[in-house]
Amino acid sequence: MRNLLVIGIGAGDPDYVTIQAVKALNRVDVFFVLDKGEAKHDLVALRQEILERHVERPYRVVHGRDPERDVRSGPYAEAVEDWRRRRADVCERMVLDELADGECGAFLVWGDPSLYDSTLGIVEDIVTRGNVELDYEVVPGISSVSALAARHRTVLNRVGGAFQVTTGRRVSEGLPEDVDDVAVMLDVRPMTRLPAQGVDVYWGAYVGTPDEVLVAGPLEQVAARIDAVREEARARKGWIMDTYLLRRHVDGDARG
Amino acid sequence: MRNLLVIGIGAGDPDYVTIQAVKALNRVDVFFVLDKGEAKHDLVALRQEILERHVERPYRVVHGRDPERDVRSGPYAEAVEDWRRRRADVCERMVLDELADGECGAFLVWGDPSLYDSTLGIVEDIVTRGNVELDYEVVPGISSVSALAARHRTVLNRVGGAFQVTTGRRVSEGLPEDVDDVAVMLDVRPMTRLPAQGVDVYWGAYVGTPDEVLVAGPLEQVAARIDAVREEARARKGWIMDTYLLRRHVDGDARG
Ligand SMILES: C[S@@+](CC[C@H](N)C(=O)[O-])C[C@H]1O[C@@H](n2cnc3c(N)ncnc32)[C@H](O)[C@@H]1O
Ligand SMILES: C[S@@+](CC[C@H](N)C(=O)[O-])C[C@H]1O[C@@H](n2cnc3c(N)ncnc32)[C@H](O)[C@@H]1O
Repeated sequence: MRNLLVIGIGAGDPDYVTIQAVKALNRVDVFFVLDKGEAKHDLVALRQEILERHVERPYRVVHGRDPERDVRSGPYAEAVEDWRRRRADVCERMVLDELADGECGAFLVWGDPSLYDSTLGIVEDIVTRGNVELDYEVVPGISSVSALAARHRTVLNRVGGAFQVTTGRRVSEGLPEDVDDVAVMLDVRPMTRLPAQGVDVYWGAYVGTPDEVLVAGPLEQVAARIDAVREEARARKGWIMDTYLLRRHVDGDARG
Repeated sequence: MRNLLVIGIGAGDPDYVTIQAVKALNRVDVFFVLDKGEAKHDLVALRQEILERHVERPYRVVHGRDPERDVRSGPYAEAVEDWRRRRADVCERMVLDELADGECGAFLVWGDPSLYDSTLGIVEDIVTRGNVELDYEVVPGISSVSALAARHRTVLNRVGGAFQVTTGRRVSEGLPEDVDDVAVMLDVRPMTRLPAQGVDVYWGAYVGTPDEVLVAGPLEQVAARIDAVREEARARKGWIMDTYLLRRHVDGDARG
């Protein structure tokens, strides 16, 4: 029996790490890392910093090559499915070859493992295949949505109201009908494409990091500015991660 | 100028507290507490435990009496609004009387301050009134939704899909149309009232605490059991906090 931990490390600030995560990090013999082709160096640096700061015992780091995602092949969900299967191949190999019986391995996950992350799916795949006996646990983390709300000092839901998390792809079709507060992740298209009337936006890039940028206001007034800031930042750093909250105006707004 | 911190302490396990929260706790001169009439002793004990374990400097604790919520008066949102105003009165009084210029005060918030919590609304109220100059910061915390997902080792969204957080009141009217994954908070009514066909549930009470109970399965099969477990637990402990994730079956499910 091998043990595996999926540890959320928070979405930006190294201090987002929880005491539970620190304790979990200190049970780990082997950290597994999927190396991306592109160089999100700051993310790698953050992971490094967290290990150096908090781990007080010797550990190994095993790197695997993250397979390319075939962007041309078929519908979105299927392409992601296929990608996950190939990532599971790589991860299963790493676990079989590098984790001894009785040892504890770990994947560190950006933010919270439950939100727009494939690690739990990969681990389930490996367990289902049955080639390796795995016992695994999940440690929750501060998601980019919680971090964004905290930095804007705002709540996510109105009193008694619902709150939705969705993708840039979906929100292109318009804000959902039955929800007035929507957090958007994984968006690569301009803000100015969104129907802006009667909507406030709370936007943040690199939230919780030294590069953090925040912009808030009526979407009509700030959409173009956000697009400009975003393009400038992406060009300067070579990559960007940003999230935003859209909030429809409602009569007699009450939050909490 | 007075400083105020709104600190998320996580929703159950004292180890959900982040390093950022621990650092924030150690800047605080005065902790403000609104005492509820009812006795959620375990919650008070958790707060106590976190302070004792992590705070390394002297501090004061100031208690205020949480005003009763007038459940009869008018619509839900208005009743909550009115309640918040009266809570803001109490909190403003505490800050004015007990926090000296240059000192740092704090409210500790269960879970994440951005999710179904009135503290940020109260602080905004106080700032808007302008009777006291306040500079405030928010520290995000592990919400009960993240905790629930971690304990069930599941993700919240399907690949490319949206994810919604809503209340028991709202979900009584049925699952939202455009979303297949819904977390429900603040529900006091039986599970068996919900349309169960084609829906899986991941339910948890007292998540992250020694009393934690988890049940998962097709809603049709487990709803009655959850209701029974819930009533038994509520009777034994005198109070309950539970959350659940509803997940509609979708062809070719893919998560991550
Ligand atoms: C693959 S998802 C991972 C989400 C992560 N599991 C979480 O809990 O936040 C990546 C997306 O998260 C958002 N994101 C992650 N970290 C962020 C940060 N520090 N600032 C702004 N957005 C962030 C962006 O929308 C990005 O496209
Ligand atoms: C007033 S809301 C506060 C939510 C909190 N701010 C958070 O981030 O989780 C209270 C509701 O949160 C949920 N909740 C909070 N802690 C929980 C726990 N440890 N286990 C299960 N549900 C919990 C329950 O649905 C409860 O009715």
